[in-house]
Amino acid sequence: MTFSFGQIFRIQLFGESHGECVGVVVEGYPPGLDVTKEEIQMELDRRRPGNSKLASSRRELDRVRIHSGVLEGKATGAPITMTIANRDVDSSWYNMTKHIMRPGHADYTARVKYKGHNDHRGGGTFSGRMTAGLVMAGSLAKRVLREEKIEVLAHTVQIGEVGVSSEIRNEWIRKRVYSNPVRCANMNSASEMGREIVKASQDGDSVGGIVECRVAGVPEGLGEPFFDSIESVISHAMFSIPGVKGIEFGSGFDSASMKGSEHNDSAKIVNGEVVWIKNDAGGILGGITNGAEVTFKIAFKPTPTISKPQNTIDMQQMREIKLRAKGRHDPCIVPRAVPVVECLAAIVMADFLQRAK
Amino acid sequence: MTFSFGQIFRIQLFGESHGECVGVVVEGYPPGLDVTKEEIQMELDRRRPGNSKLASSRRELDRVRIHSGVLEGKATGAPITMTIANRDVDSSWYNMTKHIMRPGHADYTARVKYKGHNDHRGGGTFSGRMTAGLVMAGSLAKRVLREEKIEVLAHTVQIGEVGVSSEIRNEWIRKRVYSNPVRCANMNSASEMGREIVKASQDGDSVGGIVECRVAGVPEGLGEPFFDSIESVISHAMFSIPGVKGIEFGSGFDSASMKGSEHNDSAKIVNGEVVWIKNDAGGILGGITNGAEVTFKIAFKPTPTISKPQNTIDMQQMREIKLRAKGRHDPCIVPRAVPVVECLAAIVMADFLQRAK
Amino acid sequence: MTFSFGQIFRIQLFGESHGECVGVVVEGYPPGLDVTKEEIQMELDRRRPGNSKLASSRRELDRVRIHSGVLEGKATGAPITMTIANRDVDSSWYNMTKHIMRPGHADYTARVKYKGHNDHRGGGTFSGRMTAGLVMAGSLAKRVLREEKIEVLAHTVQIGEVGVSSEIRNEWIRKRVYSNPVRCANMNSASEMGREIVKASQDGDSVGGIVECRVAGVPEGLGEPFFDSIESVISHAMFSIPGVKGIEFGSGFDSASMKGSEHNDSAKIVNGEVVWIKNDAGGILGGITNGAEVTFKIAFKPTPTISKPQNTIDMQQMREIKLRAKGRHDPCIVPRAVPVVECLAAIVMADFLQRAK
Amino acid sequence: MTFSFGQIFRIQLFGESHGECVGVVVEGYPPGLDVTKEEIQMELDRRRPGNSKLASSRRELDRVRIHSGVLEGKATGAPITMTIANRDVDSSWYNMTKHIMRPGHADYTARVKYKGHNDHRGGGTFSGRMTAGLVMAGSLAKRVLREEKIEVLAHTVQIGEVGVSSEIRNEWIRKRVYSNPVRCANMNSASEMGREIVKASQDGDSVGGIVECRVAGVPEGLGEPFFDSIESVISHAMFSIPGVKGIEFGSGFDSASMKGSEHNDSAKIVNGEVVWIKNDAGGILGGITNGAEVTFKIAFKPTPTISKPQNTIDMQQMREIKLRAKGRHDPCIVPRAVPVVECLAAIVMADFLQRAK
Repeated sequence: MTFSFGQIFRIQLFGESHGECVGVVVEGYPPGLDVTKEEIQMELDRRRPGNSKLASSRRELDRVRIHSGVLEGKATGAPITMTIANRDVDSSWYNMTKHIMRPGHADYTARVKYKGHNDHRGGGTFSGRMTAGLVMAGSLAKRVLREEKIEVLAHTVQIGEVGVSSEIRNEWIRKRVYSNPVRCANMNSASEMGREIVKASQDGDSVGGIVECRVAGVPEGLGEPFFDSIESVISHAMFSIPGVKGIEFGSGFDSASMKGSEHNDSAKIVNGEVVWIKNDAGGILGGITNGAEVTFKIAFKPTPTISKPQNTIDMQQMREIKLRAKGRHDPCIVPRAVPVVECLAAIVMADFLQRAK
Repeated sequence: MTFSFGQIFRIQLFGESHGECVGVVVEGYPPGLDVTKEEIQMELDRRRPGNSKLASSRRELDRVRIHSGVLEGKATGAPITMTIANRDVDSSWYNMTKHIMRPGHADYTARVKYKGHNDHRGGGTFSGRMTAGLVMAGSLAKRVLREEKIEVLAHTVQIGEVGVSSEIRNEWIRKRVYSNPVRCANMNSASEMGREIVKASQDGDSVGGIVECRVAGVPEGLGEPFFDSIESVISHAMFSIPGVKGIEFGSGFDSASMKGSEHNDSAKIVNGEVVWIKNDAGGILGGITNGAEVTFKIAFKPTPTISKPQNTIDMQQMREIKLRAKGRHDPCIVPRAVPVVECLAAIVMADFLQRAK
Repeated sequence: MTFSFGQIFRIQLFGESHGECVGVVVEGYPPGLDVTKEEIQMELDRRRPGNSKLASSRRELDRVRIHSGVLEGKATGAPITMTIANRDVDSSWYNMTKHIMRPGHADYTARVKYKGHNDHRGGGTFSGRMTAGLVMAGSLAKRVLREEKIEVLAHTVQIGEVGVSSEIRNEWIRKRVYSNPVRCANMNSASEMGREIVKASQDGDSVGGIVECRVAGVPEGLGEPFFDSIESVISHAMFSIPGVKGIEFGSGFDSASMKGSEHNDSAKIVNGEVVWIKNDAGGILGGITNGAEVTFKIAFKPTPTISKPQNTIDMQQMREIKLRAKGRHDPCIVPRAVPVVECLAAIVMADFLQRAK
Repeated sequence: MTFSFGQIFRIQLFGESHGECVGVVVEGYPPGLDVTKEEIQMELDRRRPGNSKLASSRRELDRVRIHSGVLEGKATGAPITMTIANRDVDSSWYNMTKHIMRPGHADYTARVKYKGHNDHRGGGTFSGRMTAGLVMAGSLAKRVLREEKIEVLAHTVQIGEVGVSSEIRNEWIRKRVYSNPVRCANMNSASEMGREIVKASQDGDSVGGIVECRVAGVPEGLGEPFFDSIESVISHAMFSIPGVKGIEFGSGFDSASMKGSEHNDSAKIVNGEVVWIKNDAGGILGGITNGAEVTFKIAFKPTPTISKPQNTIDMQQMREIKLRAKGRHDPCIVPRAVPVVECLAAIVMADFLQRAK
C-alpha cells in the first residue's frame, strides 16, 4: 500500500508533477463536519513558491477542486477527493534528459524500480509536488483536530548553517511564520536564513535545513504500544516527504550524550492534574502521549537540483557526463516543507485520535 | 495492529517482562529453508547482559523454544512460534511501587492507556525484554537475507560523550563487535566507552548512545515509493525499540547544513555497472535502494532507571514523592540494543525482499 | 479501509451516484504494460443499461477519463486514476424523499451510520453506480491476467424462477453473453429470462437472479492458507456489490446433502500432469487453487426500488407512510451485474497472482 | 497476513494438527475485562468430539493454557496468548502416505504451495484442529459482546438430506443445541440427523450439512460501507473454516427467485422505535446493521476422509492408486463446526463493535 496511509483517517495519493493533476482521496473524515474550500486553499497557498528570490519561478495557482464526499459544504462520510491541476508545466528540458540521472534525485532508482517506464518529467510521482496532496488532506485533518483543540505548529529552525537564535514560543509561530519567506518564527534569524539561501542560489547551489513541529493540546493516552507508537507512525509518514534525512523526538540525538538524571522528565501534581516539569521526552513515553506537547525535528537535505555542473551518468549511452541541471527548483525546499510537515503531522494525529475513540 | 509488523515476512510479538515468557510468531519464512536453533540461540546470546560491570545482574538464560512451523529442521510454511521463558524474575520491588511513576518510563502512559490494568511488573509489555522477540524473528530474517548475500551489521558509535574515533570498516564490525562489552568495532574507543558507562553507573546514573547499522549487499530497486519507502519502514520499526529518540539515514542531520553540490552523490560506470562515488544518501533515493549500502544511525536515550533519587508522583495518593529506583537494569542499554537494531533491520529488509519477488 | 481493497493490485473507490463523478485509483498495475482506453470503455459499455425494456431509462454515456499513472499509452507504475462523469442526473425525486426510507435500500442504515449527513440522492455512495469503478479497475486486472492466459467469464444462470436449461460451455459464454440483454449464454433461456423481467416490470415489481463466474487458466498454488483463502477474498469482494445475498463455490450449498464419496474430486495423471476428473471443489482445496477452473455463483436479490406501493417510514415525522418509489431503476440488476462480477473476480485474481510472484 | 485476522480485535493463529500445540494470540481485548479460563474451556469442550458414534475416536482433552496478557484474572491490554497441547497424536498412518493425495483434502495444494515442505501429518496447518484457536479467541470475543448484550447463536439446520423440521426460536438454541450430539435445536430432527450420520459412517462414507448463525442484540449502524460490509467480513472469516462451500445472508439464494415486493423488508414505528416487520435482509442493508438480527447460513461439504476406497494419485511415483483412508475423522464435521461458526462470528462482531467506538 504505497501511496495510501492511515488506518481510519486514511489518504490515497495520486497524480504526478507534469501530468494532469495531483490529487488525494481522504477517508474517515467525520460525516457532518464542514469542508471549507477556503481553508484547504489557504493551506495550499502556504506551500506555493512565493515570487521572492528564494523560490522557483514555476507559477502554481493550485486551486483546489473537490470531486466527491461533500454535499452542501458538509462531509457526507463518503471518500473526499480533491485535486489541483498542473499548469505552467514545461517538460521540454526533461524530454532531453530522459536518460541522464540527476544526482541526488530518484531518477536512477525510479528507472530501476519501474524498468524505465516511470514518468520522468519533473520527477513524475517522486516530485515534491505530490506533497500538495498531503496538504489538501492535512487541511481536513487539522479541521478534525480543531474540534478537540489540538493544534499543529511547524516552523523552520535551521537553514544551512544558520540556526534559530532563541527559544520560540507557540504564539510567535502562529503570528510570524508565514510573514517571512523562510517560515521562521524569529524575524532576525529569518533574515539571516534568507541570505543563506540567496547566497547558495547565487553560487548555483542549494542548502538544506531543519523544521521543528509541535503538536499542542494532545490528550494523554494517544498512540499504540510497540509497532504503532506515535514516533513510529509519525516517522513513517515524515520519511515519505522527499528530501527528509532524519527525525528526532524531544531531545533526540542529544539524548545520546545525556545522563539519565538529566534526561528523565519529572512530573508534579498541580490542582490535581499531572504536569511535566520539562519535556525531553517530546511528549511521548512508551510510544504513547503523556499530555505534554509532542515535539519533533525533521532534517532536510539540500535541493538536489543545482545549476553548478555535476558529474553523472547517461543510462542510454552508459557513459559518464557533465550535467548542468535546469528545470525550475527552489534553492532550498525547507520553507515549502514547513506547511507539509505540519499537515502530515495533522494527518497522523487525526488518525490516532480516531483510533482512540 | 500494534504488536504485529510486516507485510509478507511478518511478526507478531507477545509476552511480558515478568510473565511466563516472551515470544514471537513469524509468517512468511520460506518453506523448506532450514531453521537452526543454534543460530537463533546465538543471536539471543548476543543480547543477553554479560556478567561485566556494564550490565544488569538479572541472569537470563533465554533458551529459545520452537513451538510450531518447523518439521525436521526445515520450515513448513506455517507460522513459526518461538518463546523464551522468563526466569530469575523478581517482581517484589515492582509490587511495592505499582502506583509510583518511574521518570522516563512508560509507567504513566501505560496506566492511562490501559486504565491501570497494565502489567506494571518490570514494565510489563513495555519492557526492553520484548526485544528478545525481535531477535528471535530477526535471526530468521538474517537467514533469509543470507540466501541473497545481504548482510546487516550494527555497532556502537557513541556512548555518552564518547564517539568512535575512526572510520569503521565492515570487517572490523564482523570481527570485533562481540569481543567487547560495548559492542564497538574500535577497541580503543570501546575501552573509553566502557569507562563512560562505569562512571555513570558509579554515580547511580546512566548514559545514552548511538548505534549505526549498515545493510550491505542490498540489490538496487528494493523499497516502495512514497509511504512505504525504505526509510519509512525502517524508522517505523526502529522507533518500536524502547529508548529510541532519533534516526537518520546517510548524512542525516548533517545534511541540513550541507550544500547540494556537497551532498549529491555522483555515480560512475565501472565495467558496465553503476557505482556510487560516495554515499551521503545512505543507499536510498526516492525511498528505493540505489545499490549502495543502506546506512542509518539510531539515537538511544539514557536508561531511565537510575538509583539517584528523583522527583516523581504517586498516582494513588496523588502526591509528589522522592524515588530511588530499584530493579535490575543496565546503566546503558546501547550495547544490548546493537543486536536488536541489527535483527530488526533484517526483519524489514527480508520483508522488502519478499515484496519485490 | 472501507473503499479500498487488495494487497498489491489495490483499488480505492470514490464518487457517488448524483455527484460529479464515480472514480477509482488503481495501484500495482505493472509498469510498462499498456493501458488502452478502448478496452476500459468496452467493459464500461457492457455494464451500461441498454435501451431495451429490461433496463432503466437513465442514459449513462460513461466515457472513461484517465487522470494519472499512464504515459504514452503505458503504465508508469504510479497510481492510475480513472473517472466517469455523472450526467443525465435527475435528483428531483430524491430531494422530496430525503426522510423517507425506501424498503430494501440502505437509506435507513446510511442515515444511522452517517448521522443523516450521507448523500441520499440516488443512494449516494451506496448506489450500484459505484460498481463502474470496479469495472474500470477490473478492465486493468483482466489485462494483467491476460498476460498469464487467465480468463474470467461471468454469465447469468438464473433470473427469478427461470434457470438456464443446459450445461454452458466457455465458448458459449464468450460468444453469446453480450448478444442478449440478460447476459445468458443459452439463447432460449435468455428469451425466457427476458420475459420474466418484463413481466415483473409490468407488475411494477422486480426480480433477482444468479450469476455464475469461472476463472479459467488459473495456475495451481494461487491463494493463501486460512484467512486469505481464494474463497475468503473473493467472497469479501463480491459482498461489496450491492444486492448480493449469497455466494457458493463449486457444488456449494448442494454439498451439504452430498456424500463424501460423491463430493470428493479424484485426480489422475495425464501425460505427467495432474488432471481433475470432476470439479465439485470449484478449483480450490484448502483455500488454494488446484489447477481446475475456479467456479462460484452469486445470488442477487430483486431490485429494491419498485413502483408498487410499499409500507415504510418517514424519519422526519416518525410515522408510517405508503411509498410509490420513483427514480430510474432496472427491474432486475442481474444483467448489469454480470460484467461487475467478472471484473471484480479479475481484480481479486490479479492481486493473488502478484502476491504469488 | 494469512494466519491473522481483524482490525482492532485481532487474532493470530499458529500451530498444527500433529505438532506441539495449536494456539492463538489475541489483541484488542479490553484491558481490565476478566479473562476466565473456565469460560474458554467450556467453549473448547463444545467443539471436542464426543464419545458418541458420530465422532472421531481421537481423544482431545484440549486444556487451555494462557501464556500472556492476563494478570490476576484480568486482561492487561497486552496480547493474550492461548494454546492447547496436541496429545493422543498418531502420525503413523500419515508417514506412510506422505505422497498420496487424499481426495477432497488440501494435500495436493499444500504440496504445491509449500513445495513439498508442508507438515503433512494430520493435515498440518490445514487441519480442522486449527479451529480450536478460533474457539479460544472466540470465547474472548463473546465476553466482549456480552458487555453490550450481543449474543451469537449457531445451530445445525441440515445434515445430509435431513433439514430441521420447524422454525427455531432463540431460546431453543440456547437450551437444546449442546444436549444432542448433532447440535440441533429441534430434538426430533436431531435424532433423524444423527441417523443420517450413522448411516453414512456405516457405509464408510460421510455427509455434509448446514449451520445457521444468528447475532442477536446487534446495535444498528455497525459495519462499514463497501469493502468492509458486515457480509464481506463475516464471509471472509467463515471461508477460512475448513470445509465451507457457501454462505448466504437472510433469504440468501432464495432471494434470486423472489419479487422485490416480497423481499423488501418494511419497517414500522413502535413506541418511537424503528421495528422491522420481517427480516429477509438478514439484518443488514448496504453492508450495515439495521437493528434486526444478523442471520446467515454456512454450507459444509462432507468430511473428505472416508474409508470407502477412492481413486487418487501418488505424487512420488506419479501414478494412480486406490486409497482407503485411515486416520481418525468424524463422518460429519457439522456438529463440531457449530461452536466454531459461533465463535468466529463473535470475533468478527467484536471487531466491528470496537471499530465503531
